[in-house]
Amino acid sequence: MQAAIVLLSGGLDSATTLAIARSEGYACHCLSIDYGQRHRAELNAARRIADAFGAVEHRVTAVDLAGFGGSALTDAEIDVPVDGLRPGIPVTYVPARNTIFLSLALAFAEVRGSRDIFFGANAVDYSGYPDCRPEYMRAFEALANVATKAAIEGHRLTLHTPIIALTKADIIRRGSDLGVEYALTVSCYQATDDGRACGRCDSCRLRRDGFKVAGVVDPTCYA
Amino acid sequence: MQAAIVLLSGGLDSATTLAIARSEGYACHCLSIDYGQRHRAELNAARRIADAFGAVEHRVTAVDLAGFGGSALTDAEIDVPVDGLRPGIPVTYVPARNTIFLSLALAFAEVRGSRDIFFGANAVDYSGYPDCRPEYMRAFEALANVATKAAIEGHRLTLHTPIIALTKADIIRRGSDLGVEYALTVSCYQATDDGRACGRCDSCRLRRDGFKVAGVVDPTCYA
Repeated sequence: MQAAIVLLSGGLDSATTLAIARSEGYACHCLSIDYGQRHRAELNAARRIADAFGAVEHRVTAVDLAGFGGSALTDAEIDVPVDGLRPGIPVTYVPARNTIFLSLALAFAEVRGSRDIFFGANAVDYSGYPDCRPEYMRAFEALANVATKAAIEGHRLTLHTPIIALTKADIIRRGSDLGVEYALTVSCYQATDDGRACGRCDSCRLRRDGFKVAGVVDPTCYA
Repeated sequence: MQAAIVLLSGGLDSATTLAIARSEGYACHCLSIDYGQRHRAELNAARRIADAFGAVEHRVTAVDLAGFGGSALTDAEIDVPVDGLRPGIPVTYVPARNTIFLSLALAFAEVRGSRDIFFGANAVDYSGYPDCRPEYMRAFEALANVATKAAIEGHRLTLHTPIIALTKADIIRRGSDLGVEYALTVSCYQATDDGRACGRCDSCRLRRDGFKVAGVVDPTCYA
């Protein structure tokens, strides 16, 4: 089995991405990032999901993004919006977060001899983040292919983003077909530490609408 | 004054790069990364250099690369080579290190509203690292310019690598002209915690030869 690195946040999208990577036969090395997010529920969920899908390993790497501030997800002084999606990039955007996460995944891939990174970015039912767009993914893959010793030695790295063009409902249908237990996942931007969702932030709204449109029972535990 | 982010390792190259950024009139926000390197002398040196050059601030951000392993600079079980430079990429290469450092600099730039990152990479008298080459720098700049909210809003980010094409001797001459006190810098891969250099690793050899060729007295404190 080929080794793949799977970035696992603990949310619905990355859990589905892990299920897809497993269904394609990869031995999955999961990576979660402890970046100073508001709550611990995400990382706990990531651990449960990695276990449920028979990941080879699950590594949690710490990086202090809260020290930079500038986002509602890392700075307790900035409120998470709960009034619905608005035009523009919301305050839940974390500066350069995906670039940091992918660069850590790239390091992990090189150490494990993996040429495949799976990343659950989505550019359809999303919050308008710049680093979720297909052109961003292409630019990162181009960078990865000049950045490493493996690249110089001729091993091409592929950045897989299997759900980037799916609607939230399609992601949920796909994951349900693959046996993802969405009760294990936490999407809420301000979940309680034991994983209950606020039901009002952008991420909760997108998730709830997704279950509704998919015709799948929403197993989310709301606070 | 325009704000610039300057990645500061504590070594000769990044100290010179900071001096160049200051000479070009930037207000410098220095960023050092505590990534689990073998010794603390580097970060202490970075602090002294930032002070000496009147940096606006000096932030040290922690990221756990030692957990990944795979390099003599982060894994105490892998010896630092002391027999001179050989063909190929040495074991002191840290997987994806510069990608991780630059992505953190990108986050810092976005939070500080800066459009300029200064990075002291060098592709002449160097150890053959893939992520020190000009094509790597171009790929990162391209990524940065699709990655952020600032990019979407039309603010172009420039990655400055002012010493990338200089020899070590030319870097030292340039820095000396700008008043860099090289006694403050630590280049050794396995310096003692109080900053004394081994004199035998690749980095020490490149540095010592640089001073010799430049005709500048080597102020390095050897162990």
